Amino acid sequence: MEQALREELVELITFIHFRRWAEGTGGNFSRVIDTDPLRLLVTPSGVDKGQVEPEQLLIVDREGKVAQGDKGPSAETLLHIQIVEETGARVVLHTHSVWNTLASMTPGHELLITGLEMLKGLQGVTTHEHVEAIAILENWQDIPQLAVTLRAVLKNQPTAHAVLLRGHGLYTWGCDIFEARRHLEILEFLFEVTWRSEH
Amino acid sequence: MEQALREELVELITFIHFRRWAEGTGGNFSRVIDTDPLRLLVTPSGVDKGQVEPEQLLIVDREGKVAQGDKGPSAETLLHIQIVEETGARVVLHTHSVWNTLASMTPGHELLITGLEMLKGLQGVTTHEHVEAIAILENWQDIPQLAVTLRAVLKNQPTAHAVLLRGHGLYTWGCDIFEARRHLEILEFLFEVTWRSEH
Amino acid sequence: MEQALREELVELITFIHFRRWAEGTGGNFSRVIDTDPLRLLVTPSGVDKGQVEPEQLLIVDREGKVAQGDKGPSAETLLHIQIVEETGARVVLHTHSVWNTLASMTPGHELLITGLEMLKGLQGVTTHEHVEAIAILENWQDIPQLAVTLRAVLKNQPTAHAVLLRGHGLYTWGCDIFEARRHLEILEFLFEVTWRSEH
Amino acid sequence: MEQALREELVELITFIHFRRWAEGTGGNFSRVIDTDPLRLLVTPSGVDKGQVEPEQLLIVDREGKVAQGDKGPSAETLLHIQIVEETGARVVLHTHSVWNTLASMTPGHELLITGLEMLKGLQGVTTHEHVEAIAILENWQDIPQLAVTLRAVLKNQPTAHAVLLRGHGLYTWGCDIFEARRHLEILEFLFEVTWRSEH
Repeated sequence: MEQALREELVELITFIHFRRWAEGTGGNFSRVIDTDPLRLLVTPSGVDKGQVEPEQLLIVDREGKVAQGDKGPSAETLLHIQIVEETGARVVLHTHSVWNTLASMTPGHELLITGLEMLKGLQGVTTHEHVEAIAILENWQDIPQLAVTLRAVLKNQPTAHAVLLRGHGLYTWGCDIFEARRHLEILEFLFEVTWRSEH
Repeated sequence: MEQALREELVELITFIHFRRWAEGTGGNFSRVIDTDPLRLLVTPSGVDKGQVEPEQLLIVDREGKVAQGDKGPSAETLLHIQIVEETGARVVLHTHSVWNTLASMTPGHELLITGLEMLKGLQGVTTHEHVEAIAILENWQDIPQLAVTLRAVLKNQPTAHAVLLRGHGLYTWGCDIFEARRHLEILEFLFEVTWRSEH
Repeated sequence: MEQALREELVELITFIHFRRWAEGTGGNFSRVIDTDPLRLLVTPSGVDKGQVEPEQLLIVDREGKVAQGDKGPSAETLLHIQIVEETGARVVLHTHSVWNTLASMTPGHELLITGLEMLKGLQGVTTHEHVEAIAILENWQDIPQLAVTLRAVLKNQPTAHAVLLRGHGLYTWGCDIFEARRHLEILEFLFEVTWRSEH
Repeated sequence: MEQALREELVELITFIHFRRWAEGTGGNFSRVIDTDPLRLLVTPSGVDKGQVEPEQLLIVDREGKVAQGDKGPSAETLLHIQIVEETGARVVLHTHSVWNTLASMTPGHELLITGLEMLKGLQGVTTHEHVEAIAILENWQDIPQLAVTLRAVLKNQPTAHAVLLRGHGLYTWGCDIFEARRHLEILEFLFEVTWRSEH
């Protein structure tokens, strides 16, 4: 059972790496395997995401401490935990693609996307007239502080599907592997179309 | 026989997904398997187009009601039926690519493309001096109403090879799998060249 | 022996199609298998270049008449013959890529490329200071007439590595499969860099 | 042991070619197999980098003379040796990608990149506020002279991760295959984002 959860997450990570959305050991990925208490499967830090093996995934608790596995988790695991706790997501994806990095450099505190049918690929969206507001947080190396900011942003935006970190990348999530992957594909598409149509 | 028709359509859909022309469960695809009365093989709604299996394809009648299969068809099946009935097409492809979405955002009611040799890949076109007019319909969530508009547009343009929905994507078609695929590849090429040459 | 010649050419065509340089049955490809009298292996017209089989290749004579094979050759076979006879090339590649189509739309009668190290991938070029002049011919549907123009251009430019047809695509060639492929990869690279650096 | 070193380098080169960072026989690659005296595994000149075999790699000494292998090394082997001797790198990668060629055409003597999280993929960089200065050397065909210039640049910039040659390409390196590959992926990402965000 846990083995299947590991394999499905690794299959998605391998796909993400193939798409060049997690170059140079960048990106980190997680999946809830227990909620009470929280146990989260996460990618170890500093590993080539095209070569992750299911058994390399760590298990962390709600403080981000390693409960199983012999490598350290990414410091950004704390951000995954905020998302899981605040949104109820079961799968969290953090990627660094060219298009999401460019999107994250949009001036101001949020990126607004509207008028595109593909918005309907985001959970709960039923019309292209929907305005998707994606918060852009300033990038910090102080992850615990960033976690506090992220939590506040999510509390304010209970229907958010994603958050951008400026010059850094994207966090998106879903209730399962299928939805998280769909959100990621949709957002990458929206970022590329939006950028190209404005430049 | 029907199995072969299913497999050929799935092979094309898999190719289209690999090209990233149907991200995030987007796009829908159909093939006529009987004309009198009309029976249409169509993709179910909400399925990852990279993982469709031949037996998942539904069969619908000319009202779009499911005659075989246990998932619902996309609401857009109605648009496929207009195209089949009006143009005589046997295969209809609806894709959401970056370049066809950008093309669909061209101001005005049609996109004109001329001067390119690749136009000759569209059925019946024999010179690069041909002017291909591709209608751009405003996007609506009211599909029955959109179907009426689409039907009227096709009636006015009996030699059309494609229609764009603004901010949404492309419909193209052909007399068989081979021609529909060729039209799609040609149109994607033309959209990318046209966009890049003007931006 | 002839079988190996067919297989090597098909391997190259399959690669070219994978790179999306011959979409929608576009492009045509040839290889000399005898010089006296000339016998040329050529792709048949209207075939998906990702699915050509070695036995589908035709053999034509120096007038472009089919000596072996049951499909018609592309009308553009005549252009291949001009290139073979005038330059001594043994392999001729005609592709329609996005970047070579954009390059072909450069105003004027030639595209000049200089200052790039990759120019040294073109046979006989030893410095990035070399100025590669690639003639741009106006596109015509009258292929015999185009053949005459092409022959004259090649006579004037005995060290040319390629010719562009406006809004149509690229002809390049080489003394063997290896050199022709190298020229194609180099030229596609140069077209993309040149276009991006100027737009 | 030496066989494994060859195979790992070839695996990386094959990946680089797949990414289109070494088109048309371009690029050259090396790996230290002994330091005292220096013995360097290098790619032979004029070979398609998608088809290099482990046994085709040459071994050269610190003057760049072939100690083992029957093809000539690239003239640029001298530049690899400067990098190895000056920085202590064990793996050196020289690639010609579209994005690194465009980056190399930046006016002035260096390209500055800052504000991007992916900078942290470069060895020793711990914050996106880091300013990475990548020297741009003018391109010369006189490789021994270029080697002298390169050596001086590296002496001045002991923490450099890369050098660009104008209109030519990128040199990057690492303490092992893993780090060199990570640097290459990171730099390609940074070049593309930087170029797109400024054009």
